[in-house]
Amino acid sequence: MNQTILFSEKEREALAQELPCVVRGRDRDADTVVTVGEGASCVRIGGGHFALMAGPCSVESEDQVMRIAAAVKAAGANLLRGGAFKPRTSPYAFQGLGEEGLDLLVRAKAATGLPIVSEIMNEKYLDLFLEKVDLIQIGSRNMQNFDLLKALSRVRKPVLLKRGFSNTVKEWLLSAEYLLSGGNDQVILCERGIRSFEPLTRNSLDLSIVPLVKDLSHLPVIVDPSHATGRAELVPGLSLAAVAAGADGLLIEVHDDPANARSDGRQSILPETFAVLARKVEAIRSIL
Amino acid sequence: MNQTILFSEKEREALAQELPCVVRGRDRDADTVVTVGEGASCVRIGGGHFALMAGPCSVESEDQVMRIAAAVKAAGANLLRGGAFKPRTSPYAFQGLGEEGLDLLVRAKAATGLPIVSEIMNEKYLDLFLEKVDLIQIGSRNMQNFDLLKALSRVRKPVLLKRGFSNTVKEWLLSAEYLLSGGNDQVILCERGIRSFEPLTRNSLDLSIVPLVKDLSHLPVIVDPSHATGRAELVPGLSLAAVAAGADGLLIEVHDDPANARSDGRQSILPETFAVLARKVEAIRSIL
Amino acid sequence: MNQTILFSEKEREALAQELPCVVRGRDRDADTVVTVGEGASCVRIGGGHFALMAGPCSVESEDQVMRIAAAVKAAGANLLRGGAFKPRTSPYAFQGLGEEGLDLLVRAKAATGLPIVSEIMNEKYLDLFLEKVDLIQIGSRNMQNFDLLKALSRVRKPVLLKRGFSNTVKEWLLSAEYLLSGGNDQVILCERGIRSFEPLTRNSLDLSIVPLVKDLSHLPVIVDPSHATGRAELVPGLSLAAVAAGADGLLIEVHDDPANARSDGRQSILPETFAVLARKVEAIRSIL
Amino acid sequence: MNQTILFSEKEREALAQELPCVVRGRDRDADTVVTVGEGASCVRIGGGHFALMAGPCSVESEDQVMRIAAAVKAAGANLLRGGAFKPRTSPYAFQGLGEEGLDLLVRAKAATGLPIVSEIMNEKYLDLFLEKVDLIQIGSRNMQNFDLLKALSRVRKPVLLKRGFSNTVKEWLLSAEYLLSGGNDQVILCERGIRSFEPLTRNSLDLSIVPLVKDLSHLPVIVDPSHATGRAELVPGLSLAAVAAGADGLLIEVHDDPANARSDGRQSILPETFAVLARKVEAIRSIL
Repeated sequence: MNQTILFSEKEREALAQELPCVVRGRDRDADTVVTVGEGASCVRIGGGHFALMAGPCSVESEDQVMRIAAAVKAAGANLLRGGAFKPRTSPYAFQGLGEEGLDLLVRAKAATGLPIVSEIMNEKYLDLFLEKVDLIQIGSRNMQNFDLLKALSRVRKPVLLKRGFSNTVKEWLLSAEYLLSGGNDQVILCERGIRSFEPLTRNSLDLSIVPLVKDLSHLPVIVDPSHATGRAELVPGLSLAAVAAGADGLLIEVHDDPANARSDGRQSILPETFAVLARKVEAIRSIL
Repeated sequence: MNQTILFSEKEREALAQELPCVVRGRDRDADTVVTVGEGASCVRIGGGHFALMAGPCSVESEDQVMRIAAAVKAAGANLLRGGAFKPRTSPYAFQGLGEEGLDLLVRAKAATGLPIVSEIMNEKYLDLFLEKVDLIQIGSRNMQNFDLLKALSRVRKPVLLKRGFSNTVKEWLLSAEYLLSGGNDQVILCERGIRSFEPLTRNSLDLSIVPLVKDLSHLPVIVDPSHATGRAELVPGLSLAAVAAGADGLLIEVHDDPANARSDGRQSILPETFAVLARKVEAIRSIL
Repeated sequence: MNQTILFSEKEREALAQELPCVVRGRDRDADTVVTVGEGASCVRIGGGHFALMAGPCSVESEDQVMRIAAAVKAAGANLLRGGAFKPRTSPYAFQGLGEEGLDLLVRAKAATGLPIVSEIMNEKYLDLFLEKVDLIQIGSRNMQNFDLLKALSRVRKPVLLKRGFSNTVKEWLLSAEYLLSGGNDQVILCERGIRSFEPLTRNSLDLSIVPLVKDLSHLPVIVDPSHATGRAELVPGLSLAAVAAGADGLLIEVHDDPANARSDGRQSILPETFAVLARKVEAIRSIL
Repeated sequence: MNQTILFSEKEREALAQELPCVVRGRDRDADTVVTVGEGASCVRIGGGHFALMAGPCSVESEDQVMRIAAAVKAAGANLLRGGAFKPRTSPYAFQGLGEEGLDLLVRAKAATGLPIVSEIMNEKYLDLFLEKVDLIQIGSRNMQNFDLLKALSRVRKPVLLKRGFSNTVKEWLLSAEYLLSGGNDQVILCERGIRSFEPLTRNSLDLSIVPLVKDLSHLPVIVDPSHATGRAELVPGLSLAAVAAGADGLLIEVHDDPANARSDGRQSILPETFAVLARKVEAIRSIL
């Protein structure tokens, strides 16, 4: 008797009809390993390789990003996150440093060797991202921006596809299918919490979908506990939970002065908290 | 004793701080009237003027759009809807006729005099839409595509802003604030149902927000009962309900051969059903 | 071509298998008409007969309930609502007058002739309710209190079954099936809004389910716009919307001093607002 | 700089006003340790003591419950779960063995020494539960059955209070407040997933609330991954995730013939799967 068959043959075939590139099949049973960055500093994600992505919500200044990049590198991160073009609910909120922000990330990469992940909001900046960024993030609000998906399906650069905060797993995988069917199979899925009726957390992180999607698809699945909870104090516990649930990586907001962060300070953890967390992540991975 | 004060002075001031252009204030208490189209065939919406927008989900062929445009015009519609660029969940679904679809809508407008509403998905087609479309729709999935909002805030063309299917009223109004604060005050809000746990309908249409948003803001609010329910049989009842709740207009999918429609046939009503509905809408409006 | 077939034969048969008593079938196609109260003052609901139920959230004093009962009667209500046993989220909130509250309702009934609807929370008070109440309400939080459903299935007294605030339509009908299969076919369904992510209203009222459930089942369906919105100012618009959507009745909280009501004052409308509303309800019903 | 302050002083005070017994305060800062069962076989839960509750969804026969009880005991469980009175969505589903089911659990307890947890649905069976059950469960659908809460607040027997599947954390704690303020402070909270829009899992398990509630309240918090996911294959991963997030225990459905279980077979894991899981739970606990 086997309890590892999550989807029946029939269910899996129906899903494979709709999602021929994303669902595991006879031709494509092995886990996809995504390679981010080049040369010596490249990072492999999936198939047993773990990604620990960390950095500030927004790039704010050269000093800030260099300091935080060095700190997360020292603590064990293998990718640097940082927002340059920021999707903001209000037109009056800080909209990011734009191209200048990307340049500062490039300098932090030169100093630390960490490949860069940053969010693209608009197809018109694609050349800029292809030049400067190692892993291009499609944010939650753009998961169903189909023209952006089509544009990214045609490039040779890995993509981090966040789940929309109210999208079903199937819709998420269909957005990944846009990327794969268009020719880009270097795709990492990222769960970041769904919207619910609960006001005490920013979102509700449903970790059930980690083992579910890993069973269904060959793509790596990582978790963003910062946006999922919206509260720094919950990030360590949820990070460990994500690892225990089988995630292939974490995407964590770290800031050394959260009270003065220009965005998302409430959910950013300190570098020293991150360092402790990184060690516990390793300990849990060694058990699984 | 007055039961018309929905928000207290204090609540309204707090909201007006965040939404200075969208919330009613001393300078801007009167309802905004949006003018769509030009010359004799222009249509006014808001401030007591009602919009009855109808047409096929997708433009499929010249014959199809001309037939349906004539039918909805005869039944009392004053705007023609039709999708040319289609946001589709699956990469394998019909993606719309694109520019050719807009051209067919222009021909239908020439034949019927009905101004056109159609959805834009990408800033790069803005010139095309400015030339050919009278009311540019921002769809539910693009409500928080902030670059698209910024681009549309700089043009002189009315915008129909649909609510995201899992966005709060405040987020919706903040997206409208992007448009108004950028310089475009010809904005119509459109409710189209929110995602819920109920599988028997496509979405859950919360009409409560119609009187709520009309109290809070000076912008016109219309309702799309087709996407809200996903079932043609529910469209007439919900259309009348929207009018009774105070909506400034309706956006309804009509098709004369729903079984063979290339998209959303299940939620498209027949022209003859639409004609009966249009008469009842008038009857209810005369009571209110 | 027929657009009135909401469920296909196959869908309907599958539902009829699970819900043999509740779903329309060959034997039971006609609308159920529920009779509330006895003798001259009895009220029929369903099959074209409309129920206008109004009164205070909680019975607070003899004076209060007599005043409000007279006012809603004069305005056109045909049933009196009033809570005696109150389900309260906090143990420190007013829990209702209990049996004394029921006695005060009985006096109001004697004075006005209006039959009484009140909520039961516990099987142990069933004899009391059978003696004093004309229509026994099962509240939203007890929709899946299966022992209470079983107890009420065995009595000869009509039941008002509210939908749970996060229950699917199918779960709601299965709870009705408990009543009907147990022997009580005098059941009225009441929609009162579902919980969503929106903080500006107490719940989200999905009126789509009114025509949907009326197509599927022979039971009458009424709407409670007071709990659905949580804001008095939204009650009139939503009441008219419910009627336009095809509801067989309304359940409305009315209070003549909402600011000092012991519960739900924020969502109670004034008797004079109710009187205006009652006339508009009639006008809309005459159109449909 | 301290990242352990989840709620500000002001927030905590506001919550303590509404929840004086449940929220940590000056008088009640230490974790509550709940003692289940008596004598040598009693189990302590909370304050570092972990509960591993396992057993069948429903008690089906003496043979079945004895076999499964022995298996989960051998694998490391320290409490036996089993349903005798079953809340079932459909009146036609198996409703449980009732009192006979409790008697079979008592025999399994005699054989294994494991204290018993079972769900009560109706105040009228309270004496029966006080006699036969060690930990009385209030199920998700009864979290706001206030009369049942009041009845259980007056007894000397620990209570397991499941969160309603669409209730906020605050509503859940207010239901616990009913128990504590009424005199029963032996309360364990149990998260079991919330209802969402996702059809591929039965519920969405939001583990964020585990560290959040443990910070706010002194009560132990455990997790039920079986109802949370509805799929046996997801139970091990989610169980480990719950432990990593800080849960004080797990409540897991185990069956040795899931395909023929009379309820919830799809979400029941095999005894051998449970045994492997129990060892991993210990390994993760040793890291934290």
